[in-house]
Amino acid sequence: MFDLIFTWLNRWTADQYLALGYRILKMILIWVAASLLLKLERIVVNRFFDGRAKIGIHVNRKKNDTLRELIHSVVRYAIYFLALMITLGEMGVDTTSIIATAGIGGLAIGFGAQSLVKDVITGFFIIFEDQYSVGDFIKVEDISGTVEEIGLRITRIRGFKGDINIIPNGQISKVTNYSRGNSAVIVEATIAYEADVDRAIEVIDKVIGEYASDNPDIVEIPRVIGVVEMDNVGVTLRVVGRTLPMKHWGIERDLRKAILGALEENRIEIPYPRLVVLNRD
Amino acid sequence: MFDLIFTWLNRWTADQYLALGYRILKMILIWVAASLLLKLERIVVNRFFDGRAKIGIHVNRKKNDTLRELIHSVVRYAIYFLALMITLGEMGVDTTSIIATAGIGGLAIGFGAQSLVKDVITGFFIIFEDQYSVGDFIKVEDISGTVEEIGLRITRIRGFKGDINIIPNGQISKVTNYSRGNSAVIVEATIAYEADVDRAIEVIDKVIGEYASDNPDIVEIPRVIGVVEMDNVGVTLRVVGRTLPMKHWGIERDLRKAILGALEENRIEIPYPRLVVLNRD
Amino acid sequence: MFDLIFTWLNRWTADQYLALGYRILKMILIWVAASLLLKLERIVVNRFFDGRAKIGIHVNRKKNDTLRELIHSVVRYAIYFLALMITLGEMGVDTTSIIATAGIGGLAIGFGAQSLVKDVITGFFIIFEDQYSVGDFIKVEDISGTVEEIGLRITRIRGFKGDINIIPNGQISKVTNYSRGNSAVIVEATIAYEADVDRAIEVIDKVIGEYASDNPDIVEIPRVIGVVEMDNVGVTLRVVGRTLPMKHWGIERDLRKAILGALEENRIEIPYPRLVVLNRD
Amino acid sequence: MFDLIFTWLNRWTADQYLALGYRILKMILIWVAASLLLKLERIVVNRFFDGRAKIGIHVNRKKNDTLRELIHSVVRYAIYFLALMITLGEMGVDTTSIIATAGIGGLAIGFGAQSLVKDVITGFFIIFEDQYSVGDFIKVEDISGTVEEIGLRITRIRGFKGDINIIPNGQISKVTNYSRGNSAVIVEATIAYEADVDRAIEVIDKVIGEYASDNPDIVEIPRVIGVVEMDNVGVTLRVVGRTLPMKHWGIERDLRKAILGALEENRIEIPYPRLVVLNRD
Amino acid sequence: MFDLIFTWLNRWTADQYLALGYRILKMILIWVAASLLLKLERIVVNRFFDGRAKIGIHVNRKKNDTLRELIHSVVRYAIYFLALMITLGEMGVDTTSIIATAGIGGLAIGFGAQSLVKDVITGFFIIFEDQYSVGDFIKVEDISGTVEEIGLRITRIRGFKGDINIIPNGQISKVTNYSRGNSAVIVEATIAYEADVDRAIEVIDKVIGEYASDNPDIVEIPRVIGVVEMDNVGVTLRVVGRTLPMKHWGIERDLRKAILGALEENRIEIPYPRLVVLNRD
Amino acid sequence: MFDLIFTWLNRWTADQYLALGYRILKMILIWVAASLLLKLERIVVNRFFDGRAKIGIHVNRKKNDTLRELIHSVVRYAIYFLALMITLGEMGVDTTSIIATAGIGGLAIGFGAQSLVKDVITGFFIIFEDQYSVGDFIKVEDISGTVEEIGLRITRIRGFKGDINIIPNGQISKVTNYSRGNSAVIVEATIAYEADVDRAIEVIDKVIGEYASDNPDIVEIPRVIGVVEMDNVGVTLRVVGRTLPMKHWGIERDLRKAILGALEENRIEIPYPRLVVLNRD
Amino acid sequence: MFDLIFTWLNRWTADQYLALGYRILKMILIWVAASLLLKLERIVVNRFFDGRAKIGIHVNRKKNDTLRELIHSVVRYAIYFLALMITLGEMGVDTTSIIATAGIGGLAIGFGAQSLVKDVITGFFIIFEDQYSVGDFIKVEDISGTVEEIGLRITRIRGFKGDINIIPNGQISKVTNYSRGNSAVIVEATIAYEADVDRAIEVIDKVIGEYASDNPDIVEIPRVIGVVEMDNVGVTLRVVGRTLPMKHWGIERDLRKAILGALEENRIEIPYPRLVVLNRD
Repeated sequence: MFDLIFTWLNRWTADQYLALGYRILKMILIWVAASLLLKLERIVVNRFFDGRAKIGIHVNRKKNDTLRELIHSVVRYAIYFLALMITLGEMGVDTTSIIATAGIGGLAIGFGAQSLVKDVITGFFIIFEDQYSVGDFIKVEDISGTVEEIGLRITRIRGFKGDINIIPNGQISKVTNYSRGNSAVIVEATIAYEADVDRAIEVIDKVIGEYASDNPDIVEIPRVIGVVEMDNVGVTLRVVGRTLPMKHWGIERDLRKAILGALEENRIEIPYPRLVVLNRD
Repeated sequence: MFDLIFTWLNRWTADQYLALGYRILKMILIWVAASLLLKLERIVVNRFFDGRAKIGIHVNRKKNDTLRELIHSVVRYAIYFLALMITLGEMGVDTTSIIATAGIGGLAIGFGAQSLVKDVITGFFIIFEDQYSVGDFIKVEDISGTVEEIGLRITRIRGFKGDINIIPNGQISKVTNYSRGNSAVIVEATIAYEADVDRAIEVIDKVIGEYASDNPDIVEIPRVIGVVEMDNVGVTLRVVGRTLPMKHWGIERDLRKAILGALEENRIEIPYPRLVVLNRD
Repeated sequence: MFDLIFTWLNRWTADQYLALGYRILKMILIWVAASLLLKLERIVVNRFFDGRAKIGIHVNRKKNDTLRELIHSVVRYAIYFLALMITLGEMGVDTTSIIATAGIGGLAIGFGAQSLVKDVITGFFIIFEDQYSVGDFIKVEDISGTVEEIGLRITRIRGFKGDINIIPNGQISKVTNYSRGNSAVIVEATIAYEADVDRAIEVIDKVIGEYASDNPDIVEIPRVIGVVEMDNVGVTLRVVGRTLPMKHWGIERDLRKAILGALEENRIEIPYPRLVVLNRD
Repeated sequence: MFDLIFTWLNRWTADQYLALGYRILKMILIWVAASLLLKLERIVVNRFFDGRAKIGIHVNRKKNDTLRELIHSVVRYAIYFLALMITLGEMGVDTTSIIATAGIGGLAIGFGAQSLVKDVITGFFIIFEDQYSVGDFIKVEDISGTVEEIGLRITRIRGFKGDINIIPNGQISKVTNYSRGNSAVIVEATIAYEADVDRAIEVIDKVIGEYASDNPDIVEIPRVIGVVEMDNVGVTLRVVGRTLPMKHWGIERDLRKAILGALEENRIEIPYPRLVVLNRD
Repeated sequence: MFDLIFTWLNRWTADQYLALGYRILKMILIWVAASLLLKLERIVVNRFFDGRAKIGIHVNRKKNDTLRELIHSVVRYAIYFLALMITLGEMGVDTTSIIATAGIGGLAIGFGAQSLVKDVITGFFIIFEDQYSVGDFIKVEDISGTVEEIGLRITRIRGFKGDINIIPNGQISKVTNYSRGNSAVIVEATIAYEADVDRAIEVIDKVIGEYASDNPDIVEIPRVIGVVEMDNVGVTLRVVGRTLPMKHWGIERDLRKAILGALEENRIEIPYPRLVVLNRD
Repeated sequence: MFDLIFTWLNRWTADQYLALGYRILKMILIWVAASLLLKLERIVVNRFFDGRAKIGIHVNRKKNDTLRELIHSVVRYAIYFLALMITLGEMGVDTTSIIATAGIGGLAIGFGAQSLVKDVITGFFIIFEDQYSVGDFIKVEDISGTVEEIGLRITRIRGFKGDINIIPNGQISKVTNYSRGNSAVIVEATIAYEADVDRAIEVIDKVIGEYASDNPDIVEIPRVIGVVEMDNVGVTLRVVGRTLPMKHWGIERDLRKAILGALEENRIEIPYPRLVVLNRD
Repeated sequence: MFDLIFTWLNRWTADQYLALGYRILKMILIWVAASLLLKLERIVVNRFFDGRAKIGIHVNRKKNDTLRELIHSVVRYAIYFLALMITLGEMGVDTTSIIATAGIGGLAIGFGAQSLVKDVITGFFIIFEDQYSVGDFIKVEDISGTVEEIGLRITRIRGFKGDINIIPNGQISKVTNYSRGNSAVIVEATIAYEADVDRAIEVIDKVIGEYASDNPDIVEIPRVIGVVEMDNVGVTLRVVGRTLPMKHWGIERDLRKAILGALEENRIEIPYPRLVVLNRD
C-alpha cells in the first residue's frame, strides 16, 4: 500500500501539486472572507440600531441588546453554513441534498415568519407616513385609545378603561386618527310636535351662544342645523359645531345640560313616547 | 516550494496567461458595468419621482427624498450583490448555495411585501381610472368622508367628526363616490289612516314647490311619489327629488320642517302608534 | 505583454477566428430579432386596442393611449432584458444569479398583480357571457343600481341616491340582474280578524282589476293569492302580479293607495295591534 | 476574410457537413410536427365542442364559435412558442432566460385563472352528479329560484321577483334542491289558553280532511302533530303534511284560510297578547 | 451531396451502427412499456371501482362507467405524453421547454383541482371513521337532515321540508350526529310568582310519570330539575329526560300538552307578562 | 446484422464487459435494498402503531389494521417508484419528465392533504400538552360537551342533547376546558327600588349559608357581592361562589329556589317592570 | 469470468486504486462527520432547553424530556438521510428522484406545520415584548381571564367561571392587558327630568367623596363628569374615576349602592320609563 502511495506521489506533476495548493488557498480565503463578513455585519446592524433610536422608534435598552444579539446569531449561523457548503463543494462533496434539505426547512420557517415580515414593513410605513404618533387618540378595528408606543413590530394603545392594547402592525389596515383635526360637536334635542320649532331653535342657539362665548376650546360655535328626524316621539333637532381636537366630549356634556335647562325654562316640552289607546271590551 | 512555483510559471503558455488576463478583464468590466447601472438607476428613479408630481400624487418634499434614498439603497445593494456573485463565479467559486440562501430570504421578504405591491398597483389604477379625486365625498367599506390625499400606497379620508382615516389602497375594493352626480333628496312623511291621502299629497307638493322655487341647489323639484308603506302607525308618503352633489342633507332638513308646518296648518294628523286595548278582569 | 498578445494572435487558427465571428454574428442577430419583436408587439397591441372598441368596452381616448404606452413600456423592457441576458450568456458571463434575482422580483410583482389578472379574466367573461349591459339595473353584493360602464377591470354602477359605485370585476361573483325579465309586483294588506276574508279578497281584486285595465306596464294582472300570515294584528293577504322590467315600484305604490281606498270605502277594518289587558291591584 | 472562410469551408469534413444537415433537417421536422399538432388540436377541440352539446350544456351558437376561436388561439400561440424555443436551442442560443421569463408570466396568469379552472371543474361535477337540472327550484347561499341555464362556468337562476341571478359554479358549494322530493306543508295555529286543546285539534283535523280530500297535489294529508309552543299569547299547534314538489306554498295559504274559518265557526278563541296591569299611584 | 452521404455511411463503424440500433431498440421498448402500463392501469382502476362498491360507496352504474372512462382517458394521455417526451429526448430534441410549458399548465389545473382532492380525502375519512351512515340524522354547518347518500366527493342530506342538500365532503368539518345516542327531552314550564313552586314540581312530575309509564321510547323518565330562570313573567321550571334517538320531538309535544292540562287542573297559574302602571297627569 | 453484432461483441474489451456487469450488479442491489427497506418500514410502522396504544390514543382494532395497511401500501408504492426510477436512470433513460409529471401529481395531492397533516400535528399537541382528556367537559368553537374520544385526526364530543360531535383536530384552535378547576356559581336576584338593599343582602346571605352548610359540593360559600345593575325594573344583586367542577348548574338551580322562598317570606318585593302613564285626550 | 476479473485487476493503475481508496475514505469521513454532528446537536438542543427555563417559559419536567427526545429524533433522521444521500451519490447512484420524492413529502409536512412555526415565533415575541405575564388579567379575542401559563406554543388563561382556556400563540393577534395600569371606574345614574340636575350632581359627588376618603384602592376620586344622555326615561349622569388595577369592579358595585341610597335620601327621583297615553274610542 505505501508502495502505491509513494508511486502515486511521484507521479504527481508540479501542476497537480499547485492545483491542490490553489484549492487549499481558496478554502482558506473563503473562511477569511466569512470572518470579514461577520465583522461587516456587526457594523451594519449596530449602525441600524443606533439609527433606529433617532427616527423615533422606542425600544428599551435591554430589549434592544437582546434583539441585536438575536440578529447577530441568525446572520452568523447563515454565514457559517454558506462557508461550510462552499468548502464541502471544493472538497468534492455533492451538497445538493444538504442544500435541498436546508431549503425546505428554510421555506417552512419563512412561511411561518411571513406575518413577522409584514409587521415590520407595515410598521415602517406607519412611521414613515406619520399615520399616528405617540399621544394621538386613534381607532384601529375595534380598539380605541391613546397611542403609548409605536414599535417596528407592534403598537401599544392605552384604552379609556386603563387597559393596554397590543396590536401587531401587520394587523393594522384602516387607521382612524382623531388627533389630526378639530373635532365635531354633535348634540341632538327632541321636542314635542306641539312645540314651536322656530322658537326652540332660537332658544337653543341663544343658550349655546352664551356658553360658547367664554370657552377657548370651541373653534366654531355650535348651532342648530335643522330637523333631522320626525318619529313617534317628536321632532329631533341637531346641533353641530367644532372644537379643538378631542375636546368635544366635555363640551357635548355641557351643551346637553345647558339645552335641557333652556328648554325647561322656556317651557318647550321634551316629549315622552306617545300611544293612542282605543279601548274596547 | 518556490521551485515548484517557478517551474509552474515557466510551464504556462501564452494562452494560459491570456485566459487569465481575459478573466481579470471580465471582472473589471463587470464592476464598470455595475457602476454604470447605478448611475442609470439614479436617473430613472429621479425621472420617475419628478414625473409623479405631475400626475397629481401628493408627497411632501421630505418624504419624497427619504423614499428616493430608500429605493436607491435597495437597488444599489441588489447590483452589488449581483456583481459579487458573477465575480465569484468567474473566480471558480460555486455560488449555488449563496444564491439559494439569498433566494429563500428574498422569497420570505417577497411574501411579506405582497400587500405593499398590491397597494401600489391598486393606487395606480385609482388614479388612472379617476375613481375619486381630492375633495370628493366617498365611502370605502365602513369609512365615509372627504378625500384629503391620494398617495400611491394610501388614501387619507377626512371624516365628518374631524377624524382622519388612513386606508391602504390595496384594501379598497368597492368605492362609492357621492360627488360625481346629482344627489337624491328623500324625505318621508307619515299621515294617519283617517287623513285624506290625496289632499295630503297636494299640500306637501305645494309647500315643496314654494320652497324649491327660490333654491338654486335643487336640480329636480321634489314631489310625492306615492304610498310606500302602510303599517300600524299610518300611511307613509315618500318625497323624492334631485339636488346638486352633496346638497341633499341641508335640503332634506329644510323640507322636513316645511312639510311639518304645512301638515299642521292644514290639520292633517301626524299619527302616533295606536293600540286597541281589550280590558278584562 | 504586447509580445504575448502578438504571439497569441498568431496562434489563432482560422477556426478560432470564425467561431469568434459566428458569436459576434449571433449577438447582432439577437438584437435585430429583438427590434423586429418590438415592431411586432406594437402591431399586435394596437390591433387589440382597436378591436376592444368594437366588442363594446368603453375606454376614453386619453386613458386608452396611456394604457397602450404602459403596455409598450413593459413589453419593451422585457425584450431588452431578454436580449441582454442572451448576449451576456454568449459573452461567457454566468447569468444564473441575475435571472434568479429578476425572477424573485418578478414573482413578488406577480403575486401582487394576481387580483389584477383576476379582474381582467372575470371582466372578459362578464362581457362574453353578457351577464349585464350598460343600462341594466343590477345588484352585486350590497350595491344596487344602474350599470353605467363595463370596463375590462372595473364596473361602474350608478346608485339610486346619485352615487357612483366602482367595483373591480374580480370582486363580482354573484350578480343579480333585474332587467332581464318581467318584475313581480308584491303588495300586502292586513285586515282585522273580524273582517270577512272572502269579501276583502273580492274587493281588492276588483279595485286592482279596474286599475290594471288601463295600464300598459302590467303584464299579468295582480290578484290576491291567499292568506300568508295570521299574527297578533290580523290576517295578511298578499297580492302578486307581473309588470314590465323595473316598473313594479311605481305600480306597487299605486296599488297600495288603491287598496287603502277600497278597504275604507267598503268598511273593511285595517287593524291596529291589540292587547288584552287584565287589570289587578 | 474570404480567404479565411474559404480555408474554413475546405477544412470541414463530410461529418461536419452532415451534422449541419441533420440539424437543419431536425428544425424542419419540428415545424412540420408543429403544424400537424395544430391540425390535431383543431380536430380534438371541435369534437369536444360537438360533444358538449350532447351532454346538455347550453351554449348559444355565437358564443360557442367565439370560445372555440379563443381556445384555438391560445393553443396555436403555445405551439408556436414551443417550436420557436426548440429551434433556438438547436441553433445554439441559450433559451433558459426566455423560458424563465415566460414561466413567470405564465404563473401570474395561472394564479389569476385559478378560479376559472375551479368553476369548470365544479361545473363538470354539478352536471355529472346531476345536482340540479334546468327547471329545478334550488337555493345556493342566499339565492333561491328556478334554474334557467347550467353552463360549464356559470349557473343562471331565475328568482321569484323576476330577477336573473348569475353565479359562477366554483362559488357553489352547498346546494339545496327543492324539486327532488315531496314538499312539507307546515302551518301553525295559536289558540288561547282558555280554549280546549283537544277540541281545537279535532276541529282543525276535520277541516283539513275536507279540504285535502279533493286535492290531487296532497301526498300525505296534513294533521295536527301536537303542541309546539306555550308562550305569553297562547298555545301553538303545528300542522304537518306532504305535497307534490313545490306545491306547498299554495296549499299552506289555503289551509290557513280554512283553519281560520273553522276556529271562528267553532268559537275557539284566537288570542291576542295579554298583559296583567297592576295599577298604582 | 449523395457522394457525401455515401462517404459518411462508409465512415461509420460497426459501433456507430450498433449504437443507432440500440437507440431504436430503446424507443421501441419505451412504447411497449407504455402499452403494458396502460393495460396495468386498466386492471388497477377496474379493481378499485369494483372494490368501491363493497365498502359501501353508492354510485349508480352509469355514473360509474363515465367516471371510469374519464380516469382512463387522463391516465392514457399522461402515459402517451411521457413516452413521447422520452422518445424525443432519445432523438436528441431538448424537451425542457415542452416540459416547462406542460408543467405550468399542470400546476394551474392542480391548483384548481385542490378542493376536489380535499373532497375525496375527507370523504375517505368520513367513511373510514364512520362519522355518519345512510339514515343518520346529522347537522353540518346550517344544514340538518337525514343522510341519503355518502359518496367519495359529496354527501346528500334530505332536509325536513323535503329538500335535498348536496354538500361536498371537503366542506364538512364539524359534524353533529344525532343518531348515535339517546336524545334529551327538554321542556320548560313557567308558573306565576304567586304559585307554590314545590307543589308545581310535584304536579308536573306526577303527570309525566303517568305519561311515561306506558311509553317504550322513554329511556330515562323526565323529571323537573329545578328553577332555571326568574324573570318579569314568572318562575321557569325545566323538565329533562332521555328517549331513544330522535324520539324526543314527539315526546316533547306530548309532555307540553300533559303539563298544560295538569297545571290547569290543579289551578296553578300560567302567568302573562306583568306591568306596574303608575298613573299621573 | 448478426455479423455486425458478432464483430461488436468481439470488439468489447474486458473493461466494457465488467462495466456492464457492474451496472447489472447495481440494479440488483437497488432492488435488494428496496426489499430490505420495505421490511424495515413494516417494523417501524408496526412499532408506531403498538406505541400509539400506550400513549392513550383510542383506535378500534379493525380501523387500526385498515390504517396500517393503507400506510404500508403508500410506502410500498413510493419505494417501488423510486427503485424503478433509479433502474431506468442506470439503463440510460432520461427520467426527468417522469419525475416532473409525478411531482406535479404529488404536489396536487400534497396541497389537498394539507389539512390532514395539520389535523395530525394538532392532535399530537392536544395529547402531548394534555389540553383535555376523555371525560372532560369542553367547549370548542360553538360545540360544548363531554369528550368521548381523542384520536390523532379527530375528537368526538358528546353534547348535552345526546348528539355526538365530530371535529377534526386541525379545526380546534381555542379550547375551553371546564373540568380543570372549581366552577363559579353565579345567581342574580332583582329587588324593587322600594326594598331595603341591606336587608335583602342579609336575607339572601343567610338562606345561602343554611343551604351551603350541608352541601359537600360547595368549595366556597356563595355570598352577595353587591349591586350590579340599576335599571327600569329594580336593583339587581349578584351572588357568587365556587363549587367542585361542573356542579354549579345544580347548585344554581337550588339557590334560585331558596332565594325566591326567602325573599317572599321576608316580604321583599320582586319587582315587575314599571311604566309611568300620563293620560291625555 | 474470473479470468476477466483478473485481467481487469491487473489493468488498474496505481491511480485508479488510489481514486477508489479516496472515495472509500470520503464515505468513512462523511459518517464520522455525521456522528460528530449528532453529538453537537445534542449539546445545542440541551443548552437551549436549559436556557428556556431561565427566561421564564414553564414546561414541566416530563413534557420537557419528551419534547427533547422528539427533536433529537427528527434531527437524527435528517442527518442519517443526508449522509445516506451523499454516500449513494459517491457510489454513483443518481439520487435526484429520491431527493425529489423526499422533498415533496417534506413540503407537505412543512405546509401542515406552518401554524406550528407561527405559534412558536409569536410565542417568542409575546415573551420578548412582555405583552403579558403570568397573573395578568387579559382579553384575547373573546376570551378573558387570568394568565396561568405562557408556553412557546400555547397560552393558558383561567376564566372567571373556573374554566381553563388554551389558545395557540399564533392565534393571538390583538391582546388587551388590564393589569398594566390603573383601571377606570364608570358608573351611570339616571334621574328624572323633573329633578334638579345640579343638586343631583352635588349629592352624588358628596356621597362618593365620603366613600372614597377611606378606600386605599382609589387612585383618583370618582366624580360626575356631566350629562351623557337624555332619552325617554330621564337624564343620565356618568361618574368616572380611577382605581388600582382590577379593583374597579368591587368599587363600582359599592358606588352604585351608595348613589342609590343618597338619591333616595335626598328625594331625587329615579325615573321609570314614561308613556303619554291618548285615550280614544
